[in-house]
Amino acid sequence: MAPKAVVLLSGGMDSATALAITKAAGFDVLALTVDYGQRHRREIEAASRIAKHFRVKDHRIVSLDLAAFGGSALTDRTIRVPEQRRLEEIGQGIPVTYVPARNTILLGCALALAESMGARAIVIAATAVDYSGYPDCRPEFYKAFQEVARLGTKRGVEGDVIEIRTPLISMSKADIVRKGQELGVPWALTWSCYQGGARACGVCDACQLRLKGFREAGIKDPLPYARRAPAPAD
Amino acid sequence: MAPKAVVLLSGGMDSATALAITKAAGFDVLALTVDYGQRHRREIEAASRIAKHFRVKDHRIVSLDLAAFGGSALTDRTIRVPEQRRLEEIGQGIPVTYVPARNTILLGCALALAESMGARAIVIAATAVDYSGYPDCRPEFYKAFQEVARLGTKRGVEGDVIEIRTPLISMSKADIVRKGQELGVPWALTWSCYQGGARACGVCDACQLRLKGFREAGIKDPLPYARRAPAPAD
Repeated sequence: MAPKAVVLLSGGMDSATALAITKAAGFDVLALTVDYGQRHRREIEAASRIAKHFRVKDHRIVSLDLAAFGGSALTDRTIRVPEQRRLEEIGQGIPVTYVPARNTILLGCALALAESMGARAIVIAATAVDYSGYPDCRPEFYKAFQEVARLGTKRGVEGDVIEIRTPLISMSKADIVRKGQELGVPWALTWSCYQGGARACGVCDACQLRLKGFREAGIKDPLPYARRAPAPAD
Repeated sequence: MAPKAVVLLSGGMDSATALAITKAAGFDVLALTVDYGQRHRREIEAASRIAKHFRVKDHRIVSLDLAAFGGSALTDRTIRVPEQRRLEEIGQGIPVTYVPARNTILLGCALALAESMGARAIVIAATAVDYSGYPDCRPEFYKAFQEVARLGTKRGVEGDVIEIRTPLISMSKADIVRKGQELGVPWALTWSCYQGGARACGVCDACQLRLKGFREAGIKDPLPYARRAPAPAD
């Protein structure tokens, strides 16, 4: 029987690629999507479509209203999502789209599911290259959480540690596009934009990083965009 | 202005005492209760009453359905809560009432709230003496989570670490009763029983540990009990 892995599936291009990598590595994937009160439903819908595409048999969607805690443009509609930032600016400092402790909570939920279902690993699509400047996307954070997983679970006490995997941590967005392309990630089903419009906005940090990745990989992003930030003059 | 602390308030005797200790230490208390799909509502109601008693101005109750992950008698009514276990047995091995990764998730939620609200500390009423055998009640687990709080938050990156406090970690149940009594904890408003009957059952691990604490402290527990386990012959 294939070992199980819980994959945190947000619906974006990164988590779709992480899912594809995990499947390709021979794991039986359990997908987990946390509906944390994002300002739009596009991501959750995308997660469902991606899970179906990859024939994931068990996809759980659980709700936790992080908006109740405040502090982020992604859960609070009164805070504006930044647009048209220069690429050099993105990743410098922590932006208002940072959701306090989000990845800690996501990993906690994944840990609960992994422990209950006897999964060997948890997979999270964090990347520390071409990233948004979020503190909980750095390798040292995952190392610290690995200790929490070891010490805070029954499995850990029994010496059978649930492994925290971050397969994208050292990949640029272009690397992710290349890898995802190779593994057949259905880009058209993914949603990265922080806004929830009919089309991706093209100018928030997430859209810009995504477009940069496709541009650098020389692959066409099939998503329609409402606008495009001026391409950097390089 | 008094520094703020987020206190995880379950509604039990331990978290009520932790709240009283935190208030007495001069903190402005923000109470956080996570409704995680417990088999009964008694704890949540108790948490509200305790928060009111201590005039907590901000008490948040957020829902997260841990029952969706399974694996515990506290969230799954098809798993029986053990009764009448001998006191020497309690804390030996990890019982079926352990909720996978619960304290990791609770701390993650508290971390989100603490970061949003500018709280200096998070207080959790874990105790490693007279305890239930849960892995996420041990001091080393909290030390590991402290690293997660340092590395995974904006505040931590800025060098202003949110402190994880476990004021009860080295206290026996009798110590907790004595301390709570001194600080005016309203025992009659607290709920420790794993079952959700009209009265506390008196025979689950939580009731037995609570009754042992009151007995050893020489203080009368004002809660009515449905049954009593035979007192140990000591």
